[in-house]
Amino acid sequence: MRTAIATVSLSGTLEEKLGAAAAAGFDAVEIFEADLIGSTLSPAEVRDLAGGLGLAVAMYQPFRDFEGVGPDVLETNLRRARHKFQVMQELGTDLLLVCSNVAPGTSDDAKLAASQLSRLADEAQAHGIRIAYEALAWGTHVSDYLAAWRIVEMADHPALGTCLDSFHILSRGSDPSRIREIPADRIFFLQLADAPLMAMDILQWSRHYRCFPGQGGFDLPAFMEHVHAAGYTGPLSLEVFNDHFRQADPYRIAVDGHRSLLALQEAAEISGLPARVGVAGYAFVELAVDAGSGEQASAVLEAMGFEHIGPHRSKPVHQWRQGAARVLLNHGDEHAGSDPLVVALGLESDDPAAAAARAQSLGASVLPRRRGAGEADLSAVAAPDDTAVFFCRTTAGEDGWLGDFIELGDGSASDPGITAIDHVVLSQPFDYFDEAALFYRSVLGLEPRDSQDLVGPDGILLSRALTDTARRVRLAITVPRLAGGEHGRLGELQHVAFASDDAIGTARRMRERGVPLLGIPENYYDDLSARTDLPGERVVEMRELGVLHDADDAGELLHFFTEMVGGRLFFEVVQRIGSYDGYGAANSPVRLSAQLRPAVEPHLS
Amino acid sequence: MRTAIATVSLSGTLEEKLGAAAAAGFDAVEIFEADLIGSTLSPAEVRDLAGGLGLAVAMYQPFRDFEGVGPDVLETNLRRARHKFQVMQELGTDLLLVCSNVAPGTSDDAKLAASQLSRLADEAQAHGIRIAYEALAWGTHVSDYLAAWRIVEMADHPALGTCLDSFHILSRGSDPSRIREIPADRIFFLQLADAPLMAMDILQWSRHYRCFPGQGGFDLPAFMEHVHAAGYTGPLSLEVFNDHFRQADPYRIAVDGHRSLLALQEAAEISGLPARVGVAGYAFVELAVDAGSGEQASAVLEAMGFEHIGPHRSKPVHQWRQGAARVLLNHGDEHAGSDPLVVALGLESDDPAAAAARAQSLGASVLPRRRGAGEADLSAVAAPDDTAVFFCRTTAGEDGWLGDFIELGDGSASDPGITAIDHVVLSQPFDYFDEAALFYRSVLGLEPRDSQDLVGPDGILLSRALTDTARRVRLAITVPRLAGGEHGRLGELQHVAFASDDAIGTARRMRERGVPLLGIPENYYDDLSARTDLPGERVVEMRELGVLHDADDAGELLHFFTEMVGGRLFFEVVQRIGSYDGYGAANSPVRLSAQLRPAVEPHLS
Repeated sequence: MRTAIATVSLSGTLEEKLGAAAAAGFDAVEIFEADLIGSTLSPAEVRDLAGGLGLAVAMYQPFRDFEGVGPDVLETNLRRARHKFQVMQELGTDLLLVCSNVAPGTSDDAKLAASQLSRLADEAQAHGIRIAYEALAWGTHVSDYLAAWRIVEMADHPALGTCLDSFHILSRGSDPSRIREIPADRIFFLQLADAPLMAMDILQWSRHYRCFPGQGGFDLPAFMEHVHAAGYTGPLSLEVFNDHFRQADPYRIAVDGHRSLLALQEAAEISGLPARVGVAGYAFVELAVDAGSGEQASAVLEAMGFEHIGPHRSKPVHQWRQGAARVLLNHGDEHAGSDPLVVALGLESDDPAAAAARAQSLGASVLPRRRGAGEADLSAVAAPDDTAVFFCRTTAGEDGWLGDFIELGDGSASDPGITAIDHVVLSQPFDYFDEAALFYRSVLGLEPRDSQDLVGPDGILLSRALTDTARRVRLAITVPRLAGGEHGRLGELQHVAFASDDAIGTARRMRERGVPLLGIPENYYDDLSARTDLPGERVVEMRELGVLHDADDAGELLHFFTEMVGGRLFFEVVQRIGSYDGYGAANSPVRLSAQLRPAVEPHLS
Repeated sequence: MRTAIATVSLSGTLEEKLGAAAAAGFDAVEIFEADLIGSTLSPAEVRDLAGGLGLAVAMYQPFRDFEGVGPDVLETNLRRARHKFQVMQELGTDLLLVCSNVAPGTSDDAKLAASQLSRLADEAQAHGIRIAYEALAWGTHVSDYLAAWRIVEMADHPALGTCLDSFHILSRGSDPSRIREIPADRIFFLQLADAPLMAMDILQWSRHYRCFPGQGGFDLPAFMEHVHAAGYTGPLSLEVFNDHFRQADPYRIAVDGHRSLLALQEAAEISGLPARVGVAGYAFVELAVDAGSGEQASAVLEAMGFEHIGPHRSKPVHQWRQGAARVLLNHGDEHAGSDPLVVALGLESDDPAAAAARAQSLGASVLPRRRGAGEADLSAVAAPDDTAVFFCRTTAGEDGWLGDFIELGDGSASDPGITAIDHVVLSQPFDYFDEAALFYRSVLGLEPRDSQDLVGPDGILLSRALTDTARRVRLAITVPRLAGGEHGRLGELQHVAFASDDAIGTARRMRERGVPLLGIPENYYDDLSARTDLPGERVVEMRELGVLHDADDAGELLHFFTEMVGGRLFFEVVQRIGSYDGYGAANSPVRLSAQLRPAVEPHLS
């Protein structure tokens, strides 16, 4: 179906908004009145600019507080509408959004509203214009989409239809299935927005927290199925008021929005994308390092029991391995600096080329590869934060990537017990949080959980975990809940968590090998003893080693952390007992406090 | 009364929190359990550190989900409590906060809760400890303070009292006057927090949006009067969960919090401060400039019709004047740079020394003055954003500041019609918004209005106006609603608005004198014609000159803006017609759009 976006969803000047919408692949825009009023472009210039960019002007909006008024106000409102009809003719659009009246003195007489809207439609029709009447969730009397539709039905005017808006419908808890009762030719327009589920004033919720489909808590695929079943064939248009989007790069946000509509159509089975290709685990995590940070990272990996397998055949990249956990140190990456940084994730894929093609169809940038003779052709795309996501097969065969590395190690190094990569946590640039979640959801098929607050000593981090249904790829993204603090160093941390079947044994062996483990305060263990039934001798061991404990309904977690490796990265080791499915969030205040201490003595050295 | 603060209200390590609380003048702290658990200090070390800083440990908190449980859970909970009693003895505090149970399976039997709390109190008493039972607003069965009190009354145990928390009481809309019914010796503790009035989930509201008394929408003076009338004599303790405070400098936030308690006690007539000294208008606005920006600012002021009165007798400061509007250009200020910046406000005061003394008693820093022979002794304090606030008298006499300047001009320059300073708008550093509002409210006696969103093309600004009752000093503070955007240049703008009795005439004369006025799009005037009854010829004039229009219930506003003077400052001219009491916020999207355009051609040149 055609895609559109309301200019209010994007930041910048009207020229930038239109440019961003076109670049992202939208077919049309809704022109938000304030964007036109604030622009130096005349309506005709906007029409020409949009046309030149290949964008239709699908609608002009909003026209407020028209219906259910006394005769004098009606005349004033009609005069106001005639001005707008003229603007719309210059703008080259034939559809005006009229929102249900929110003024306190509005009449609740549906017949009066219908007759006044009919009069408006008469005048509109004379200008070649149609009216799309929409129920605002906070309309004085018309707040439900069926109430708006009944007024439209009553007016029975060919130039009057209704506009459906998923936010206004779902935020009130209305049943969207009755959309199917509305004749397709009377649904003049469809606006789509998602939102996180929040118990708050609907107007504030709407003005600040809307997000793109798939980023919030509404069931938009089900909503879309109803609209599709009703026979609507107009554009799917994003109307999203979001504080973050309003201050972010409009070109980036437009790509995010367009991706959301493609994913929504796939989820609602309206139109397809290249088939999903599941991810089957982490093949590797790649860190960018310079000479100094490379030495530091190598030393820590070696102490943790990783074996240096050897260098890449043609690139300054080294493979380290323990169990199925592979870490690549890239000494030639453009992001390399004095802090080791995660710059790429390698994901096991049955069909790397198809996975990359799907990602590209969702607006992800495919990364160019320099491929040497006889090397694997790895497909990679860029995540929103520029992390490279490789789709690959961990075999030494022709279609695998292992053959790209010279194998010096013999795999017989001592083994503190790391078996695999359990999860990776990547801090995101501020304003990238929802986009990143949608990217990993739509491109990799990972399902996001609800966001959680991690309370640190210098601010709150929002954290959201995503995982495939088989729990083979676990990823979490974090972002400061607010940016701009005087503190806030912890907002930029990344970490890689390795799995072990025996966290305490692994911690003990790592300590013996000189790994600097994060010191956990004694007070933590005093509290742990008070609030759990853990055997005393177990707590003694954990206390000695800095191992933390968490539990959920399905199991328990034992985990510990290394000290920082450089300024932004650290490692974790986790042991999942039973079917524990979390990430130890309850312990993050203690972990973050320990990490903030500027010059903490390692607990164990 | 004694003042206290919960460590959770401040950011940083526990050491920093204690240091900040002591430096701000608090008498005591509540130790928040997570702060202790995350600390490397043992409870005894915390006691010693607090003691060394002169801080009592007033309470340990919170102890959760104790009462209304089955017998097995009760035993587990008692065991947990015994651990905490031991911690508290080391910590040197005798008061434990027990919050009403929030677990779903909790019994609603008040007698059971009373008997279990009584058992807890028995054990506590044996350790020399008392229990303060508090109703959380979201407690499963006990969510109202009177319900908690009735349980305490029923238990009738000397070691069991209640803790009152203004947020939990006022957020639910409970009537606080019945606090007077609780015997003073059974109110073991008082926690104070304000909050902006929001219709949202109470738990989220509580966790993220609490603020210090006087910064939100609750009537805390009335609340305090009830507590005082009940005879409570314990500490007033701030327990404020606030996302901004959690990421800001704890030393600054602690000063803000302590100020809020002093102002609250004054408002509730519990204890006094040095008497308020009213401010009677703007004496001057001072801009810091360097050589280049000084030349630019002088040229704009001259074109606007300001007369160069002359230099200061001993400092590199020049006075410019038009009507009663005085602007000082300071060529020697430490903040001077290539962008002219507002660095000081001069406010008319009947008793400058008393005004400064009051400010100092509220924790404001008094600024040192270098005073030459025969010069006025100006009293000044620093606002949170470091703007200097001078209290002064605009006379040439011995107690006035005019005599400090050499008078070269004769006051006969041509006059485009500026009569006075109408208002000043100062952007604040992120996280300073609430503190700034409380500062200007408590120190200057300005009453804040509700915050407003100003929607700009690169993000939303929060704006809050403050004014004295006579409307002689109008000030507005702004801050980005979110920081950290990829855009966001508009979040740092300052402006000075001058009054005129004839904005259109003033605009015309300024244009003739070559003042670069901000260009307003044609579309604005097309819309203005559509939505107002302004005479056509009036709109033609406004369109020609870039004058904007707003109206409120009491009158109308005509106003216009200069182009930017440097990167952060611009001027405005406003004409208030009737009793218009606003600031033209409805026009800010148009103004901000015009200001964002990078290289706009002045509309009129």
